[in-house]
Amino acid sequence: METIGVIGLGKMGQGLAKNLERNGYEVKGFDLNKEVYKEFEKLNFSGFEQIEDLVSSMQKPRKILMVVNAGEPTEIVFKKLVSILEQGDVIVDCGNAKYSDSIRRGSEAKEKNIHFIDAGISGGPKGALLGCCAMVGATKEAFALVEQMFDKITIENGYLHTGNIGSGHFAKMVHNGIEYGMMQAIAEGYQVMEKSGFDYNLEDISKIWNNGSVIRSWLIELMEEIYKQDPKLDSYTDVMQMNGEGLWTVEEAFKQGTPAPVIALSVMMRQNSMQDESYAGKVVAALRNKFGGHAVVKK
Amino acid sequence: METIGVIGLGKMGQGLAKNLERNGYEVKGFDLNKEVYKEFEKLNFSGFEQIEDLVSSMQKPRKILMVVNAGEPTEIVFKKLVSILEQGDVIVDCGNAKYSDSIRRGSEAKEKNIHFIDAGISGGPKGALLGCCAMVGATKEAFALVEQMFDKITIENGYLHTGNIGSGHFAKMVHNGIEYGMMQAIAEGYQVMEKSGFDYNLEDISKIWNNGSVIRSWLIELMEEIYKQDPKLDSYTDVMQMNGEGLWTVEEAFKQGTPAPVIALSVMMRQNSMQDESYAGKVVAALRNKFGGHAVVKK
Repeated sequence: METIGVIGLGKMGQGLAKNLERNGYEVKGFDLNKEVYKEFEKLNFSGFEQIEDLVSSMQKPRKILMVVNAGEPTEIVFKKLVSILEQGDVIVDCGNAKYSDSIRRGSEAKEKNIHFIDAGISGGPKGALLGCCAMVGATKEAFALVEQMFDKITIENGYLHTGNIGSGHFAKMVHNGIEYGMMQAIAEGYQVMEKSGFDYNLEDISKIWNNGSVIRSWLIELMEEIYKQDPKLDSYTDVMQMNGEGLWTVEEAFKQGTPAPVIALSVMMRQNSMQDESYAGKVVAALRNKFGGHAVVKK
Repeated sequence: METIGVIGLGKMGQGLAKNLERNGYEVKGFDLNKEVYKEFEKLNFSGFEQIEDLVSSMQKPRKILMVVNAGEPTEIVFKKLVSILEQGDVIVDCGNAKYSDSIRRGSEAKEKNIHFIDAGISGGPKGALLGCCAMVGATKEAFALVEQMFDKITIENGYLHTGNIGSGHFAKMVHNGIEYGMMQAIAEGYQVMEKSGFDYNLEDISKIWNNGSVIRSWLIELMEEIYKQDPKLDSYTDVMQMNGEGLWTVEEAFKQGTPAPVIALSVMMRQNSMQDESYAGKVVAALRNKFGGHAVVKK
């Protein structure tokens, strides 16, 4: 029985760890929050106090998945792993790191002859648990070491060796950029339906759009579920948060000199929704008032 | 055996006519192009010389689908039908008419006690043939007359009585508006992938995106097919044509006072692609040259 280390047992990490266990792997886990180890009772899982303990308990070559937030947390865990792993060990970053960081980490790992793999995972926590989609950037040699594992934890035809190190996280980044644009388009369309004056049942509309229409998609399936649970969306505010990938996709497009206006606008709509107050909105209101004497909405 | 009339046997009309025939209906068809009748050899179909002949050959209450282009062609066929049909007959507009036109046509038909139904059909020609999605605007009385037919020609859970007359074409309009935004987001993402410097196989990428990812959808399935047939898209130009629905969705959004920026931008990107030359582009080039002495790209 092969052993896989999983560092980070949040929603995604927990799903992947249980998915691995279900597929016959022994899982050795680490999380700062030890409470989470209780989720694995009766499973072939052991939770460790320190990353060092996890690593020293594994046989070489070790295969360790990092499932932590992009940025600082990923960097801290990566640096720690590189400092204690040995030649031939494998680090698989299953988070949403920036692909350029992944390329750099690949180089840093290579200096110690440690394999670094950037795996973009899509499908949400449910996918992580039951079968996700994985875009895997890696050297051929490293990919060969983990292909069987990805075959098991992804759904059929759900994993791909996308190319060199960095290509997995790049593909995941663009996937998420597309997702931003699709979501904004869907959202705008539902708003037009809601405000139309027709008395649409948007759960029913979502259902038929998922059966035979051109826009049938998992996102519209989720709309069906959302409307089933909350027909007026009363439990949601309109603040649309985001992580980095949409913005990074736009930055890449600018760098390439290729336009990605709809994805850019989708990112900006999220940014706008996160402002307590739009400064630009205040400027327009002020200018309208100054040049035209138009009334302003008072505080 | 019930008889259904089908006027307009283009890609969609042909599919719907064959779909009806396969589901046990006798189909009476009309098209200006009589060549198309050959497509129905050996089927329970008769093609007519004139719409009048078709109508007079049918027993009351007649049920006639219009599957012609929106605008003038729809108006001509509708006027003709209203002038010759009788009380209790049913006209079902399966085209992409503007919903406000459908509401007006509903009133005009009602004056003669003819039922008018606006059915937004999605799924493309293949869907029309094998099972589509139908958003049906109609009075309850009229809907009861055609529900069984829609049940047969749509896929499971693929039809809905969306509400009053106009609501079917409105829902189809918004469906297409969402489609515009989704397509533009997908397109921009694939462009970033193509220009990335990574050597992606975009057919393979599409395939895994369709298996477990958040953006899995029929449109990405089509991307997989497109790349399978033409990996470099060599057989396509970048001119993105359009019919009316995306623009109408944006017009409705403006009328409502609700923003639909991504759908609007998607429409504008199509408009831009249809210009031989962008006049706005020339203006910016000219201004840059005038104020900054920046070189212009010569004719």
